[in-house]
Amino acid sequence: MLVNAQHFRTIWPDPRCKFVEVIDQTKLPFQFEVVRINMLERMVTAIRTMQVRGAPLIGAAAAYGIALAMLEDDSDENLAYAADLLIKSRPTAINLAWAVRRMAIGLQGVHERRNLAAWRLAAEIAEEDVAQNQKIGQNGYDLIKGLYKNKTFNTLTHCNAGWLATVDYGTALAPIYAAHDAGLSVHVWVDETRPRNQGASLTAWELAQHGVPHTVITDNAGGHLMQQGQVDMVIVGADRVTRTGDVCNKIGTYLKALAAYDNKIPFYAAVPSPTIDWEIAESSIEIEHRHVDEVAYMTGLSENGSTQTIRVIPEHSNALNPAFDVTPARLVTGIITEQGIFNTQTLHTLAQYQVGNK
Amino acid sequence: MLVNAQHFRTIWPDPRCKFVEVIDQTKLPFQFEVVRINMLERMVTAIRTMQVRGAPLIGAAAAYGIALAMLEDDSDENLAYAADLLIKSRPTAINLAWAVRRMAIGLQGVHERRNLAAWRLAAEIAEEDVAQNQKIGQNGYDLIKGLYKNKTFNTLTHCNAGWLATVDYGTALAPIYAAHDAGLSVHVWVDETRPRNQGASLTAWELAQHGVPHTVITDNAGGHLMQQGQVDMVIVGADRVTRTGDVCNKIGTYLKALAAYDNKIPFYAAVPSPTIDWEIAESSIEIEHRHVDEVAYMTGLSENGSTQTIRVIPEHSNALNPAFDVTPARLVTGIITEQGIFNTQTLHTLAQYQVGNK
Repeated sequence: MLVNAQHFRTIWPDPRCKFVEVIDQTKLPFQFEVVRINMLERMVTAIRTMQVRGAPLIGAAAAYGIALAMLEDDSDENLAYAADLLIKSRPTAINLAWAVRRMAIGLQGVHERRNLAAWRLAAEIAEEDVAQNQKIGQNGYDLIKGLYKNKTFNTLTHCNAGWLATVDYGTALAPIYAAHDAGLSVHVWVDETRPRNQGASLTAWELAQHGVPHTVITDNAGGHLMQQGQVDMVIVGADRVTRTGDVCNKIGTYLKALAAYDNKIPFYAAVPSPTIDWEIAESSIEIEHRHVDEVAYMTGLSENGSTQTIRVIPEHSNALNPAFDVTPARLVTGIITEQGIFNTQTLHTLAQYQVGNK
Repeated sequence: MLVNAQHFRTIWPDPRCKFVEVIDQTKLPFQFEVVRINMLERMVTAIRTMQVRGAPLIGAAAAYGIALAMLEDDSDENLAYAADLLIKSRPTAINLAWAVRRMAIGLQGVHERRNLAAWRLAAEIAEEDVAQNQKIGQNGYDLIKGLYKNKTFNTLTHCNAGWLATVDYGTALAPIYAAHDAGLSVHVWVDETRPRNQGASLTAWELAQHGVPHTVITDNAGGHLMQQGQVDMVIVGADRVTRTGDVCNKIGTYLKALAAYDNKIPFYAAVPSPTIDWEIAESSIEIEHRHVDEVAYMTGLSENGSTQTIRVIPEHSNALNPAFDVTPARLVTGIITEQGIFNTQTLHTLAQYQVGNK
C-alpha cells in the first residue's frame, strides 16, 4: 500500500538476492525507517524485537531468513540450524513455524543452486500471502458494496490487521482498502487498542498514509458510537477461529462484538483460511498472558521529538495483561476468508468435511 | 481514608477558618502534595485545573470558595461576585452550582458574623457528603455480604468513583472500603479508564494507600475476566441516572455492563440520590465531547522521575473523545444510594411520587 504516495510492502527482497528490506515497525508511527537485513541472525533479531510483526508477515520474514542462511552456507546442517533458530525467535506464532517447515521441506531434495531455490520459495510464500489478502479484500468489498447506501460507510476495527501485519493489503483492512480504492466513501473508527496501542500507532498510521479517512478513539468509545448509529460494520482480524466459529483475537474484541450485537450491527472477522483451526470444537483456547509492563508503561513521542516511555500506573499497584479474548460464535455475523464468507452453518459443514479428511 | 497510614479527606478547613487544604489530584499517583488555598481566586483555579475534581468534591470545594470570599469581604456584592466566578469555573458540574446556590441562599439573611456562618455552612455541606457516602457504603456492604462466599470477592470498577471524587469514602468504592474494613476479603479489578486514566492513576492509588488488594487492567480486559468467572460484581459511579434507570457514566461503562449481563454478573451504579434526575424519562442525555488531546496525549512518570506528556497517535490522524455513555436500565441490576438500593421498578414508583410532588 502507499507510504508518502509510494507503493510499499512490509518486506521485499533485493533483486540480486543478497538481502531483504523491511519497514521497521518499532519506529512507527513517528518515524518511517527501512532496515536492510543481510544475514539470518539479523532476521531473528528483527522478528524477536518486533521490527516485523503480525502472523502472516512473520511467516514471510522467516522464509526470507532461511534464504539468507542459504546464501551464506547452503548445507543441510545450516538449514536445520536456521530453521531451529527462527522457530525459537517467537515460539507462539503459528505462521512462523508453518513457513519454516515449508521452506525446509521444499529445500530438502534440492542440492544444486539451493540458495536460489530458497529465494524463489520465500518469494512464493510472500506472493501467496499477498494474493490471499487481495482475495479477502475482494470478498469483503462485495459485502460492503451490498450494504453501501451512497453515504459514508463507517467501519470500526480493533488492533492492527492491516497491511503492516501481512506482506501487503492486510486482512481486516483489505476490504476497506478495496472499497476506498474503488471510490466508495469509507471511514474507519480506529480503536486505540491498549495495551500495545497497535490501533493508534499502526492502523491509524497505515490508513493515514493510504489516505483512508479515519478517527482514533479510545477502546471505551466504540459501544457509544454504535448506540449513536455511527458504525455500519465491525471488521477485525483473528489469531485463531475455531471450527464452531469462535473468534480468538486481541483483548477487547469480545466487548466490541457484544456492542455490535446489542445494536444489530454486523460483526465480521477477516482471516486467511489457515487461521481456522478445524481441531478445536469449543472455546478451549488458552489465553496468553503477556508482561504487565505493557499495561504499566506507554511509549510515544515527547515534546522534543524523541521517543519516550512513561509509567502510567502507581508504583505500588499490580497489573494483569491477558493478550487475547474469545468472541463466541453467536456474536459473529461471518468470517471473511479468501475462499468466501463463512457463517456458523458453513463452518459446521466444512468442519465435518475437514475432520473426515484428516 | 488512609494515605501513608494517616487519615485524610480530599478537603479540610483550617480550625481557625483562615484557609482550606486540599490534596492536589493533578500530581497523583506519583506525588502526594497538599495545597493550601487562602483566597477565592485560588479555589477557582484549583477547580478549573482539576487539582480538585469529582462532582461531590467540587461542590464542597465551591462552598469553601464562598467561605474564603466572605473572609475577605462579606458584602452582598462580593457574595454575588464569588458565586458567579465559582459557577463559571466548571459550568457542567451540577453539584457545583447546587452547592453555590445553597451557600448564597443560606447566607442571604445573615448579616452578622456572616463569615463564620459561611464556614459553618460549607462544613455542613462537606459533612453531608461524607455521611451520604458512608450510608452508600453500608448499603453496598450489605449487598456484598449477602453474596460473599468465604473466598475473595472480586469487584470490577471503571473510572474513579472513590473517596478522591468526594470529600471522603467515595460512591462506587464506598461499599468496597466498608467490606474491606469489616474484614471481608475483597479484590478490585481497576479499569485503566482511557482517555483520562482516572482508574490507573486515581482509583489504583487510593486503593493502594488504603491497603485494598487490586489489579490494574486495560479497559479491554474486563469482558474476558468476566467470561473466566473472575468477576463477582461490577460497581461504578454515575454522573446522572434517569428516572427510568439509565446510567450515564464515564465512556466505556456500557461495554462493561454488556459483558456483565452476558455473563450473569450483577452490575450496580452507586450514587447519592440527588444524582437521580427525575425529569429525564429516557436516554436523552446529551453527551459531552472533550478535547481530542486527551486521546492523543498521555501523561506519566518518565525514567528520570519527572512527569512527562507524550503523543500516542500519528501526527496526521484525527481523534474523537466522547466523555460519557449511557447504559440502558435493562443491563443495570440496581442503583445503590444512601436511601437504599433501587431497581427499575422502585425507580418507577419513586418517579411517579417525585414528579407528582413537583
